[in-house]
Amino acid sequence: MGIITLLTDFGSFYPSVMKAIISNIAPSVSVIDITHDVSPQNITEGSFILRETVKYFPHGTVHIAVVDPTVGTERQGLVVEAGGQYLVGPDNGLLIPAARYLGDFETLAINISAKSHTFHGRDVFAPIGAFLSIGIMEHLTKTSSYVDVVIQEPSVREEIVVGKVLYIDRFGNCVTNVSGSIIASKKNSGGYHTLNDSVKLRFAETYDYVEDGELLLVIGSFDLMEIAMNRGSAAKKLNLQVGDDVKIDF
Amino acid sequence: MGIITLLTDFGSFYPSVMKAIISNIAPSVSVIDITHDVSPQNITEGSFILRETVKYFPHGTVHIAVVDPTVGTERQGLVVEAGGQYLVGPDNGLLIPAARYLGDFETLAINISAKSHTFHGRDVFAPIGAFLSIGIMEHLTKTSSYVDVVIQEPSVREEIVVGKVLYIDRFGNCVTNVSGSIIASKKNSGGYHTLNDSVKLRFAETYDYVEDGELLLVIGSFDLMEIAMNRGSAAKKLNLQVGDDVKIDF
Amino acid sequence: MGIITLLTDFGSFYPSVMKAIISNIAPSVSVIDITHDVSPQNITEGSFILRETVKYFPHGTVHIAVVDPTVGTERQGLVVEAGGQYLVGPDNGLLIPAARYLGDFETLAINISAKSHTFHGRDVFAPIGAFLSIGIMEHLTKTSSYVDVVIQEPSVREEIVVGKVLYIDRFGNCVTNVSGSIIASKKNSGGYHTLNDSVKLRFAETYDYVEDGELLLVIGSFDLMEIAMNRGSAAKKLNLQVGDDVKIDF
Repeated sequence: MGIITLLTDFGSFYPSVMKAIISNIAPSVSVIDITHDVSPQNITEGSFILRETVKYFPHGTVHIAVVDPTVGTERQGLVVEAGGQYLVGPDNGLLIPAARYLGDFETLAINISAKSHTFHGRDVFAPIGAFLSIGIMEHLTKTSSYVDVVIQEPSVREEIVVGKVLYIDRFGNCVTNVSGSIIASKKNSGGYHTLNDSVKLRFAETYDYVEDGELLLVIGSFDLMEIAMNRGSAAKKLNLQVGDDVKIDF
Repeated sequence: MGIITLLTDFGSFYPSVMKAIISNIAPSVSVIDITHDVSPQNITEGSFILRETVKYFPHGTVHIAVVDPTVGTERQGLVVEAGGQYLVGPDNGLLIPAARYLGDFETLAINISAKSHTFHGRDVFAPIGAFLSIGIMEHLTKTSSYVDVVIQEPSVREEIVVGKVLYIDRFGNCVTNVSGSIIASKKNSGGYHTLNDSVKLRFAETYDYVEDGELLLVIGSFDLMEIAMNRGSAAKKLNLQVGDDVKIDF
Repeated sequence: MGIITLLTDFGSFYPSVMKAIISNIAPSVSVIDITHDVSPQNITEGSFILRETVKYFPHGTVHIAVVDPTVGTERQGLVVEAGGQYLVGPDNGLLIPAARYLGDFETLAINISAKSHTFHGRDVFAPIGAFLSIGIMEHLTKTSSYVDVVIQEPSVREEIVVGKVLYIDRFGNCVTNVSGSIIASKKNSGGYHTLNDSVKLRFAETYDYVEDGELLLVIGSFDLMEIAMNRGSAAKKLNLQVGDDVKIDF
């Protein structure tokens, strides 16, 4: 019963150690990997992925998320209870956009001494999350102090929208922070818009409605504007990176 | 009980959203990832992997496969019932070689309206597959119309075989469409054969029967001819890609 | 109940075939991937990862490990029983460091004829491991003959330690064979040490206790010395590879 998810920037093999720890404490809980390929130490990217994923999981799910450049320092460990789910990880902002998305939330500080200075995924967050998944809340005290992170909103001035690239997927689609509703009111059916003062591209309902290799604007599955290319990589073509500003002149 | 497999070209994190959807509908079903690393939009590669994998799974398994460059257009969604297993995915040929391998098959069109234009893995195929795995068939109507794809056969003329590279694995072994039985009758024990009119290489029962760094022909675990290199990458050495023709003069 | 782990150098999709085989024999056993990204044919790297991982798994776990450059030759298949766990794989040394870590161990030879010469993960090790996980020991005979591999110890002479890089993780941290206890007695709080006669670096308790982009020595979560960089890749900066010697002058 019960589900634990894992989201880290660990890549290969360290997540299996977390699963071993979990299997000792909560052997009948299902573990689902969200991803272990967050760009190393990129808290913003991790927090975006977590925010877009948690909403699909059932009540009671425990999400253990570890993108943790300050592991082993004075930074606290955090549990967030939000919308009937739990988020477990370092207190560096990683968990907060997901928590806010889920609704009202409460924060608890983790009081446990780790065996290592460098792998709290194994020594702190996996056991705390595993115990939570079987209903045991220990080593936790309510706190109102935590590091907040807000995913930045785009600026909209008449026909010009300036947003930010939040995530680039395996296809090279660049997911921005510009919501679908902003686009819906501005897009010009069949006409062209201008990206970064230089690139002309059309809005389309989906990738294959433009030519092969053509750039497009599309409202993706997160209800966010993507800069994409049909059967190709917009990120490569436009040399876009996570964090880059993008300006659309509608 | 029951198994759902996932095969996509999604890479990181989108598959976890499909697993979340499945966990809400069919919480006690096991989910097994076949792969999420199909080359982007490569239906042929996806269909080859699916064909070579489904045969090992038990009766009742539901395979959700999504390599879907025309997502959100008029292309249909498809369920195929074959040999007691189910295949779920876009109607673009991806499912058919696997279905044909499993035996007689029946096709059903999916009638459901997706929330998004760009992520039917989440909005259509995951829920349809999850319901199938617990015995619920809804939003499906029999159809005899579907996009067919046939994995091309090699041409054999006396001692010359011209095949195609279907798959390149992590070791750089190039799996071709030339069946083991064709090779078995032609290979010359200990002697050399000629690849693409220029490269001499021997047939061997397995990689390590030739020297380190030596190219070889071998009948691989799919009963298909592979062009391989012992402890090295044949694909890199010969600059071979999926889809390339290969000519062997025995 | 019960757990089977998988460790291979297979990359994409072949592991799912092993999971299919397991699901037919032991449908209620949980399968946990340790990794499928071991460097191709690198037995030493695989044996290190296995050794550092098995200790966290519960009694009765079956570990199937396949890094197998001599698959299909005369090399034997091996089962090792150690500390209440089982290790299953090729008899090429891969399993032995983990077995030795777990305590006294017994070795059994696998007597089964494989269908293929190239994929014993599917045809031999997955079924043997699956049967072990449900308490069935067949096709096994005790043997005292096996290929041994010892992970090399560092040399320590006064203030100079010469070790070897055993593993490079996704962050570029270079894990060496120098144990934490060797470092603990030599490190100079706040002072600098010399790597390979040229690079000055400090010891710190964790990464973020030095400046961004600064190299450091740290005792990592395996209780082994790592050469690391705060928020950067030491492997890239120093051009280090698995197997390289590293000399520290304390």
